[in-house]
Amino acid sequence: MKVALAQLNYIPGNIRYNTGKIITAIEEAHNYGADLVIFSELAIIGYPALDILNMQEIITECMSAVKEIATCTNEIAVIVGGPSHNTGVYGKSLHNTAFFIHEGRIKAMVNKTLLPTYDVFDENRYFEPGDTFFPVDFKGKKIALTVCEDIWEEQPCGDKGNVRLYGVTPLDELMRHNPDFIVNIAANPFSHSRIKIRESIFRENARKYHLPLISVNQVGGYTDLLFDGSSTVIDANGNVTEKLPAFEEALRVIEIPSMASGTPEENSTDVFPTIHKALVTGIRDYFNKSGIKKAVVGLSGGIDSAVVLALASEALGNDNTLAVLMPSCYSSSHSVTDAVEMTRRNNIPHHIVEIEKARLAFDGMLSPFFRERESDITEENIQARIRAVILMAFSNKFGHMVLNTSNKSEAAVGYGTLYGDMCGGLSVIGDLYKTEVYKLAAEINSTREIIPVNIINKPPSAELKPDQFDTDSLPPYEILDSILYRHIELERSAEKIIAEGFDSDVVNKVIRLVRNNEYKRRQSPPPLRVSSRAFGSGRRIPIVSKY
Amino acid sequence: MKVALAQLNYIPGNIRYNTGKIITAIEEAHNYGADLVIFSELAIIGYPALDILNMQEIITECMSAVKEIATCTNEIAVIVGGPSHNTGVYGKSLHNTAFFIHEGRIKAMVNKTLLPTYDVFDENRYFEPGDTFFPVDFKGKKIALTVCEDIWEEQPCGDKGNVRLYGVTPLDELMRHNPDFIVNIAANPFSHSRIKIRESIFRENARKYHLPLISVNQVGGYTDLLFDGSSTVIDANGNVTEKLPAFEEALRVIEIPSMASGTPEENSTDVFPTIHKALVTGIRDYFNKSGIKKAVVGLSGGIDSAVVLALASEALGNDNTLAVLMPSCYSSSHSVTDAVEMTRRNNIPHHIVEIEKARLAFDGMLSPFFRERESDITEENIQARIRAVILMAFSNKFGHMVLNTSNKSEAAVGYGTLYGDMCGGLSVIGDLYKTEVYKLAAEINSTREIIPVNIINKPPSAELKPDQFDTDSLPPYEILDSILYRHIELERSAEKIIAEGFDSDVVNKVIRLVRNNEYKRRQSPPPLRVSSRAFGSGRRIPIVSKY
Repeated sequence: MKVALAQLNYIPGNIRYNTGKIITAIEEAHNYGADLVIFSELAIIGYPALDILNMQEIITECMSAVKEIATCTNEIAVIVGGPSHNTGVYGKSLHNTAFFIHEGRIKAMVNKTLLPTYDVFDENRYFEPGDTFFPVDFKGKKIALTVCEDIWEEQPCGDKGNVRLYGVTPLDELMRHNPDFIVNIAANPFSHSRIKIRESIFRENARKYHLPLISVNQVGGYTDLLFDGSSTVIDANGNVTEKLPAFEEALRVIEIPSMASGTPEENSTDVFPTIHKALVTGIRDYFNKSGIKKAVVGLSGGIDSAVVLALASEALGNDNTLAVLMPSCYSSSHSVTDAVEMTRRNNIPHHIVEIEKARLAFDGMLSPFFRERESDITEENIQARIRAVILMAFSNKFGHMVLNTSNKSEAAVGYGTLYGDMCGGLSVIGDLYKTEVYKLAAEINSTREIIPVNIINKPPSAELKPDQFDTDSLPPYEILDSILYRHIELERSAEKIIAEGFDSDVVNKVIRLVRNNEYKRRQSPPPLRVSSRAFGSGRRIPIVSKY
Repeated sequence: MKVALAQLNYIPGNIRYNTGKIITAIEEAHNYGADLVIFSELAIIGYPALDILNMQEIITECMSAVKEIATCTNEIAVIVGGPSHNTGVYGKSLHNTAFFIHEGRIKAMVNKTLLPTYDVFDENRYFEPGDTFFPVDFKGKKIALTVCEDIWEEQPCGDKGNVRLYGVTPLDELMRHNPDFIVNIAANPFSHSRIKIRESIFRENARKYHLPLISVNQVGGYTDLLFDGSSTVIDANGNVTEKLPAFEEALRVIEIPSMASGTPEENSTDVFPTIHKALVTGIRDYFNKSGIKKAVVGLSGGIDSAVVLALASEALGNDNTLAVLMPSCYSSSHSVTDAVEMTRRNNIPHHIVEIEKARLAFDGMLSPFFRERESDITEENIQARIRAVILMAFSNKFGHMVLNTSNKSEAAVGYGTLYGDMCGGLSVIGDLYKTEVYKLAAEINSTREIIPVNIINKPPSAELKPDQFDTDSLPPYEILDSILYRHIELERSAEKIIAEGFDSDVVNKVIRLVRNNEYKRRQSPPPLRVSSRAFGSGRRIPIVSKY
């Protein structure tokens, strides 16, 4: 049997666009001689569609799309994900369904049983779980058809190890009918730690049931969530026989591996090339799917904005990227020369807008009220906010979108100005700790010096007052990031982190800063998610609380 | 049997504070001669605690708190809500539990069975449902103990009518054991349409099972969510015998009503006195619980900022409220005089900061780049952003929190400037449509003219260019708000709204604006929720999408 894996990039809620893509791929797969073509989870509506799933007319449109798809299935069978109505007497109004369509008709509907409701996932909000388990018959074979989480018997859960969230194991149920192979349609988001875990889950399932497994994942950027695709075919011995590319659309026709034919597990090495690709995809898709062409970046001469500019230029083209340099009287001379050098090397247009006039204007306007007070963080924030006003003015005047340049370390401890350097439509490196930003910069520079090494080598500074360095307010980033990773990703308490040997004053200070800056993060642009725990929808803390 | 209802105001995650309050109330109830004191759902950790529930050490602290509470129960029994560990072999790590504690020991634990996961609720994210049903024995009586949603057999769901989300009805199960009365501990948030529905659910349950019902709700502001309390006792005929006050802490000792003794359903009339109380509570608790004393409001001379200032002054005291007037060359003379008159009448300190200098500075800085372009929305936004810089400067310098003054109509259609008038730590009237803001202003003025009528009577204008009125860009608010209410609260599609007789161009334009401004709302301060569908956690739309 020839099976096509269709790894495509969808737009949430745009049923017409998604269905058009699906139908084109069906035709293509048919031309390649495939008997069956497999699309990803909820392909028709895109993942995550969130509360668009509550809009009745959109669900009606999805059902019409399934019918339209059915008209293309006289010769080829299709497995495609979409929402379907729950026809039971109770429960959420929808199921998360894998449609098996052939000969112009829906031959089977398999409803997802295990509905992830943790981290960035909210599936219990929309879907009623499936509770029947039967394979799909096709050309004398029985397909164990599953949706994403259905083949995850346990979930990796940081320090808690693997946890078992559900009382049923769909594959165990399906095995009673002796299926011939497993199909898993997925919308499995990227994180740099997840890729390896995901592949090992595929391998374990194939080995455990001694069946080949085909998993098709969606690809692309979906606001903050990135999907790498990496659709995979595994033989019955748990070896990979096919792997579709990461962060690219692809259609590949394969024969179902009947015996051991794959390669043993590769040792994934450096994650930064993948993170690089992920972030470029995230920018490109945010812009493409929103119909925005151009980006503007405030280029300070520091590493964060340089990395963001490099990624933006790669994603959108150097001509579609504008750098704005906004030096103040506190900017060092190398800030401007390094920034200009960065734009020159990469042929990126730039403007220099000195902020001194605005700074003096605010000074004059506010001094009658502030007169007796020392200069403090207020005046530093004013500079950052003047820069935001300028960037947003370029955005409003020319239609560029401002890219945010904050990193995860800053976002965590609130080392940034709300409505200042925290502005922008999308946070590009908001899920990378500062120490990771350095590694990404090295990766970006691996073939040529895109980012001048001067920018990489200087000590980090906000340059909002004379001779200011980040380490004046914060612990060195190696220590800060180690603490943050343990607290955010691994959810360790201060006590546990201190017990690991970190200084207790530093740990308590860092965690207090994380806690007290929830209000800033709530108003931040969405960060492109590359870790297992990004700020945003994956981490929900009440602003007013004490813990 | 004498029962005390303890309607208290908690802080999410602050176990020590919450437990202290609970223990004080137990002692007080004991002094009043109560046999049993009832606290609300998850009282120990506060509701909603969101991902604080994932922090293992906090859960450990909660369990210690239960033990500490137990030491106070030698003579009085306690029903109190808190998280407990799921000891099963699978599932989420916690239950949402009602603890029945007496004679120094936990005598029973009842786990919530129906876990709301819709609108602002995410309970499936944290909790495993309960699945056993037994009454609690106390002094010869059997108590049917339930947690909030457990007594909601059906959920009101806008245009879809009542829907049945769950396959089990806990009270039906409990009735097999012939209980004597029903206790429901709740964290049931306020919305102006919900109050009546909630009471009717209580009444229906009491009538259906012919049993008295006691419901205890938490009270106060919890970031965006407001809880009115309104804890209620119903007799076996479905009549109210006791009702605790809205938006106030209270401890009341009652006798369980043995027969028909209550009053028939009252017809609730005007909701605006309650909304008024709700918003004042929301401001006060945000500040109190965060340890912030003072607020600053940008006072434009229009109705929105006047209403916010009036509410802030009532919540925090006139001396703790600062009004900043920031006129530009486009401000009408009445803007300043009306605004000053408002502060004078209410004894609120104010400053006047002209923004012209900053406007000219930005003009000069940007004109080399904008030279050939007409003046447009860019220049209007710059004015709004200059005002935000000024407000935030007062905030940074003096520790005042900026209160946001946007209304729901503006937030819906994006009629506001990101990092400009959309700034602030809390959105006070962000869940009130403009037409509702007028009604609230009338309510605020019902005893004396707190807001000068001039401010209320003038046509709405952003005053960002000469002779500008809101109706230049938007339909009249009566029409706009009618369309928005149908689309946001009732989730009606454009087609349905047009079919009701609204102009199709207007409807399509309004809904397009709602859709296209998701990115602005994502970066908005949390709005105090008073309706059945507020922007924020109750409405989740992907920024990059098309529907």
